Amino acid sequence: MESRTLEHLLTLEDLRQLKYRYLRSVDQKDWDGLADTLTEDAVADYGTPAMGDRLLLEGRDAIVSFMRENLGPGLISVHAAGHPEITVNGDTATGTWAFTDTVIVPEYQIVIQGAAFYQDTYARGDDGTWRISRTGYDRTYEAMVSLSDLPKFKLTSNKWATVDQ
Amino acid sequence: MESRTLEHLLTLEDLRQLKYRYLRSVDQKDWDGLADTLTEDAVADYGTPAMGDRLLLEGRDAIVSFMRENLGPGLISVHAAGHPEITVNGDTATGTWAFTDTVIVPEYQIVIQGAAFYQDTYARGDDGTWRISRTGYDRTYEAMVSLSDLPKFKLTSNKWATVDQ
Amino acid sequence: MESRTLEHLLTLEDLRQLKYRYLRSVDQKDWDGLADTLTEDAVADYGTPAMGDRLLLEGRDAIVSFMRENLGPGLISVHAAGHPEITVNGDTATGTWAFTDTVIVPEYQIVIQGAAFYQDTYARGDDGTWRISRTGYDRTYEAMVSLSDLPKFKLTSNKWATVDQ
Repeated sequence: MESRTLEHLLTLEDLRQLKYRYLRSVDQKDWDGLADTLTEDAVADYGTPAMGDRLLLEGRDAIVSFMRENLGPGLISVHAAGHPEITVNGDTATGTWAFTDTVIVPEYQIVIQGAAFYQDTYARGDDGTWRISRTGYDRTYEAMVSLSDLPKFKLTSNKWATVDQ
Repeated sequence: MESRTLEHLLTLEDLRQLKYRYLRSVDQKDWDGLADTLTEDAVADYGTPAMGDRLLLEGRDAIVSFMRENLGPGLISVHAAGHPEITVNGDTATGTWAFTDTVIVPEYQIVIQGAAFYQDTYARGDDGTWRISRTGYDRTYEAMVSLSDLPKFKLTSNKWATVDQ
Repeated sequence: MESRTLEHLLTLEDLRQLKYRYLRSVDQKDWDGLADTLTEDAVADYGTPAMGDRLLLEGRDAIVSFMRENLGPGLISVHAAGHPEITVNGDTATGTWAFTDTVIVPEYQIVIQGAAFYQDTYARGDDGTWRISRTGYDRTYEAMVSLSDLPKFKLTSNKWATVDQ
């Protein structure tokens, strides 16, 4: 049975903060910040059919390198996660999150939108800090819209527009 | 005055977990899981103009049956709720949530999107478990997009595509 | 170091409630409710390129007046904020939130969508109530869609449609 203690609520808050930092690092392309949220042996299992086959990345370096190469300033990403259902078991924990994502690639004139449920595991290190040890999701859907179908579509702001690509 | 106690925060967390489970059950078409989140005499008052008149469902069985019949594998639904404003009063509680929904019906080539504010009431049973006793929402807007206006739209992933319909 | 106390968690909940009330007031066009969430000298720094230059509003009255004039019943707005990363320092606090917004202007047949990160500061007054003392955001993107590109688009519900404009 889940303990009804202050320590339990503080741990839930720690884990939510960890996930928010992970998501903010991805969308702000802060790859060092992203690395800090992962254990060294973290595994990421992202299913993104629009980009090809199921993607399994093993180790913090593999995850961060993939993100750096594939989510650069040529695209805008917005990841929103909510509905955290977290179970803590000592120094490990699991979490399910509902999530939606929007990716805009101006050069290719496409917008990708989707939704999924994240399935994460978390581990508390010897330093007392929680990190993501496994993340992945099960897609509800993913769809691609071509902006050639929306000739009057106008990107009125793009944080990355002036970044050297 | 709202009590500033650990028990109060634990109850808020219980009620958020309840809502997240309800929403996940709907979008994952887990009708037994959905039933578990409702009191036997639960009332649902969903206003969904695109599907016709205001919809009032009385009783857990009526709610679950309606969902099972109308949110089957022929459509993809994504419900996202946030901004919980919950007031607890002993063994009952009320909650307001901001919410957005996306429904894609591939067969009819439509996407419905909208936003609303949920107004819920919750009840704690003799078993100590919180359940939803009333749910409903006041729509801010709802809009329908026809995919015939987006000829290059492509559904690149659909969790329900292979489910027998 | 952040204190791991009940009081800290209660303060985080107070600050989340404050933000939810602010967001609900904006989308429900409850301008008196909005005023209650702001300090008298609150500053808002909204960057909304689609509506022109960066917008700096100084003082509660200036913020509320601007909202009343620019977010009236002629448009539908949906603001969703999540991922709160809040740091409390005595009677002040700062918060970062991920946020998405959708604005539909039926008369001009446009939909504006975007995402940003809010950077807020909060202050606890002599009455013990937290209010927003500064809010603003850094846009990830903003895009405008013309409904003339979607001739079959249909607004099936609009809470403000019958409000005198």
